[in-house]
Amino acid sequence: MATITALKAYDLRFPTSLEAHGSDAMHTDPDYSCGYVVITTDAGDGLEGHGLTFTCGRGTEVVLVAIQSLSFLLVGKKLEDIYGNFSGFWRALTSESQMRWIGPEKGVIHLATAAIVNALWDLWAKREGKPLWKLLVDMEPEKLVSCIDFRYISDVLTKEEAVEMLKKNQEGKADREKEMLEKGYPAYITSAGWLGYSEDEIRRRCREGLAQGWTRFKVKVGADLADDVRRCGLIREEIGWDNTMMVDANQRWDVQESIDHMKRLAEFKPLWIEEPTSPDDALGHATIAKALNPLGIGVATGEQCQNRVIFKQMLQAGGLQFCQIDSCRMGGVNEVVSVILMAAKFGVPVCPHAGGVGLCQMVQHLAVFDYISVSASLDNRVCEFADHLHENFKEAIVIKNASYVLPKAAGYSTEMKPESIRDYQYPNGAVWQQLFKEGKFTAP
Amino acid sequence: MATITALKAYDLRFPTSLEAHGSDAMHTDPDYSCGYVVITTDAGDGLEGHGLTFTCGRGTEVVLVAIQSLSFLLVGKKLEDIYGNFSGFWRALTSESQMRWIGPEKGVIHLATAAIVNALWDLWAKREGKPLWKLLVDMEPEKLVSCIDFRYISDVLTKEEAVEMLKKNQEGKADREKEMLEKGYPAYITSAGWLGYSEDEIRRRCREGLAQGWTRFKVKVGADLADDVRRCGLIREEIGWDNTMMVDANQRWDVQESIDHMKRLAEFKPLWIEEPTSPDDALGHATIAKALNPLGIGVATGEQCQNRVIFKQMLQAGGLQFCQIDSCRMGGVNEVVSVILMAAKFGVPVCPHAGGVGLCQMVQHLAVFDYISVSASLDNRVCEFADHLHENFKEAIVIKNASYVLPKAAGYSTEMKPESIRDYQYPNGAVWQQLFKEGKFTAP
Repeated sequence: MATITALKAYDLRFPTSLEAHGSDAMHTDPDYSCGYVVITTDAGDGLEGHGLTFTCGRGTEVVLVAIQSLSFLLVGKKLEDIYGNFSGFWRALTSESQMRWIGPEKGVIHLATAAIVNALWDLWAKREGKPLWKLLVDMEPEKLVSCIDFRYISDVLTKEEAVEMLKKNQEGKADREKEMLEKGYPAYITSAGWLGYSEDEIRRRCREGLAQGWTRFKVKVGADLADDVRRCGLIREEIGWDNTMMVDANQRWDVQESIDHMKRLAEFKPLWIEEPTSPDDALGHATIAKALNPLGIGVATGEQCQNRVIFKQMLQAGGLQFCQIDSCRMGGVNEVVSVILMAAKFGVPVCPHAGGVGLCQMVQHLAVFDYISVSASLDNRVCEFADHLHENFKEAIVIKNASYVLPKAAGYSTEMKPESIRDYQYPNGAVWQQLFKEGKFTAP
Repeated sequence: MATITALKAYDLRFPTSLEAHGSDAMHTDPDYSCGYVVITTDAGDGLEGHGLTFTCGRGTEVVLVAIQSLSFLLVGKKLEDIYGNFSGFWRALTSESQMRWIGPEKGVIHLATAAIVNALWDLWAKREGKPLWKLLVDMEPEKLVSCIDFRYISDVLTKEEAVEMLKKNQEGKADREKEMLEKGYPAYITSAGWLGYSEDEIRRRCREGLAQGWTRFKVKVGADLADDVRRCGLIREEIGWDNTMMVDANQRWDVQESIDHMKRLAEFKPLWIEEPTSPDDALGHATIAKALNPLGIGVATGEQCQNRVIFKQMLQAGGLQFCQIDSCRMGGVNEVVSVILMAAKFGVPVCPHAGGVGLCQMVQHLAVFDYISVSASLDNRVCEFADHLHENFKEAIVIKNASYVLPKAAGYSTEMKPESIRDYQYPNGAVWQQLFKEGKFTAP
C-alpha cells in the first residue's frame, strides 16, 4: 500500500514569444508554459508522478491555484484506492460539490484536472515499469474501461460496447505492437508554417523538413485571406503536390466565413481545415463539413474541445473528419481514452494535437495505443509534431523517418529535468530573473 | 473624460451550507459565494462600479486570481473608450492572446469576465443616473447592438437583424414600460423544493408561498426517483393542480435516463424539466425535448450554459423550450443581450436563472429589458426568485404579488453594503473568523 504524501505545483514558462514560435491567428505571442504537478508517496520506491497541462503564458497562475485547490482530494489518498476505482476517483475530482460550479469539466478547472490525472498515470506506469502506451495496451479491457466515466456519453457509447471494441482488437495486437516498435508512429510537422515567420524562414524550414523525410506539412491561416493564399502557394511551391498539406485557422472564422475562405484555398488541396471556428460549435462544424467535404477537405478540431461531451456532439453531427485529441485539455488519459473509443465507433481517425510544451511527449503514447488497441488502422492517421522545448524533458521524444520512435522508459514521458523545473519557474526562476534584468520582459 | 484608476477584487462567502439552502442533486452543500469587483475612476463623482460572479464556496479563490489577472486590461483605460466601443473592449477582454487559452470564453476565465463586465455596466448605469434596465431600454438600437460581439453567432443572428428586431419593438415600448412599473415582472419560487429540506419544511414553505400569492413552484429532483415521486406528490398535494410546477435535475442524468425519469414524473404535470443532463450537450437536450414535448413537458437550461455558442446550438437543435439566461455565467450584459435576441428570433421564452447570491438582483433588470424591448410578451415567461442573502445589498430586490418590483436606483443593483463586503471576506472577515473559532468550519 502507498499513500500520496504531497502534491507540488509549479508555474513553468518558456520565453517562446521572443522568436514568434507558435504564433497563429488567435495566439500571436505565446510563451509556451505549463501548470506542472509532482506527486510523491510514502512507498519508499523513489517514484514520483509528473504531469502537466499546457498553457500560453499569462493565465498559468490561475491554473496553478486551481491545481492547489483540488489537491486536498488527493493528498492522504491510497494509490490502490485510486487505481482500483479510477473512474470513481475521476468523478470525485471533476464533480467536487462546490468546485464543479466553476467548470464543470471545462476551462481552468479541467486543465488543472488534466495535470493531476496525467501525473497519476505517469506514476502508475512507472510503478508497473512500463511506458504508458504499453500499460494501456497490456491492460485487460474490463480494467481499462473501468477507468472511464461514462456519464453524459452513454447515449453514444456504453461500458459494454467499449469492452467489446477492445476485446475484438486483441487479435493482431502483438503484430501491431511489433510493427510500431519497428517503424514508429507517423507524424507531420507544423514548425514550417507559423504565421510570424518570414518568407525566407518558411522556405528554409520547408526544405529542411523535406530533407529530413517529412511528407506532411501544416500551415497556419486565418489572419488575412490574401496572405493565406500567398503562403499556401509558397509552401506548395516548396513541397510540391505529392506531399500532404493541412491548414489551420485557429478559430478565426465564423461558419459562413469558414466556407468562403476554404473554397478560395481549395486550389491548394489541403487534407483538412483545422479549427475553422469556435471549438464549442459542433453544429457549425457540421455545416462547414457538409460544404467542404465534397471539395475533398475534411474538418479537424480538438485542441480546444473542452471535454468528451463536445467531442460526442462533433461526432454525432458529422462535424469532424479528423479527431484531434489533446492530452491536457480534457481531464487526462481517462477521458481521452473515452474519446478515442467514440471516434473509432464513428469511424473517424484520431490525429492527436501536439506541440506547445510537453504535448508531443504525451500524445505519442496515446496515438500508439489507438493503433494497437482500438483503431487497428493507420489510414489517414498521423500525429502532430513541433520541435520545441523537448530538451527540457528527461526522456525526450525521438523522431526517425518522420515518425515517433516508441518511448521505452517507464512512465508518460512527462518528467522534466530538475534544472528545467528550477530555472523556468515564473517569475522567480533564474531564466526569468535574467530576462527581467535584460529588459526583455517586464517583471509582474 | 474619466480613467479607471483601480480594480479591487474580493472573495466573499456566505455559510449557507449550515442550513442546506441551495442543496441539489449535484451541489449538496453550497456556500453561496462570489468573486466581487469594485471599479474606481478619477472622475471625482464618487461613483464606483460594483459587479460580481456567483460561485459555490471552494473555487472562489481561483476566480479571484483570474479577475486579478485580467485587471491589467482595464486599469488606465478611459471609460469613454470602453463604452464607446464596448464590443471591441469585450473582444479584447475575452480574446487576450495568452489568456484565452485557459478558456476560451468558458469556465473560470469567463466567470471572471462576467464580474468585471457587470461592474462596468453598473458604473455606466450609475453615470447615466438610471437603473440598468432603463439604460438598456432607452439606448438607441444601433448603440445597444454595438455592444455585442457577433463572433461565432453571425450564422444565426447578424448585427443588422438585431437592430431590426429592436427597432420593430419601439412601438408599444412606452406602454410596456408603464405596465411593468405598475405590475412588476412575474416570478416563481425555488425556495420550497430544495433536496435537503425535510417533509415538514417543504409543506411549511409551500403553504407560506401560497399565502404570499405565489402560483409557480420549482422542485429539485434527480437524486433518487422514488424520492422524486414522493416529493413531487407532496408538493402537488400542497399547491394543487391549478398552480404551476417545474422540476430541476441539475444535470444528474444521461440522455436516456432523462427521458425515462421524466416519463415517470409526467403524472405531476411539470411545465419544464430543467438541466436534465450536461449543460454542454445541445444535441442531447434536443433528443430529450423531442421525447418529452409530446407529454407537455418543455426542456429548460442555461445557468451553466457557458456562452452564446452553446445557447446558439441549443436553439438551433430545438433543445430549449425555456431559455434560462444567467447574469454571471456568460461574459456579462453584452453577451446576455445577444442570447436574449437569439431566443426571440427562435420564439423561445427567456426565463432567467436566479438565486444564489446577487443573481435575483441582476436578472430582474434583464427580464424587464427582454419584455419591454425584445420579446414584447409575457407568455410562458417568468423569472426565478429565491429569498436568500438580499439583505447584503444596498438596494435589495422587492417582491410584491409574486412579481419583481422594478428597481429605481441607478445601477445594476449589484452593490453590497460596506459591512457585508468587510465581514464576509474569506477567510479573514469577522464572520468567518467567528465560524472557525466555533468549529463550524475549518480554516483553510
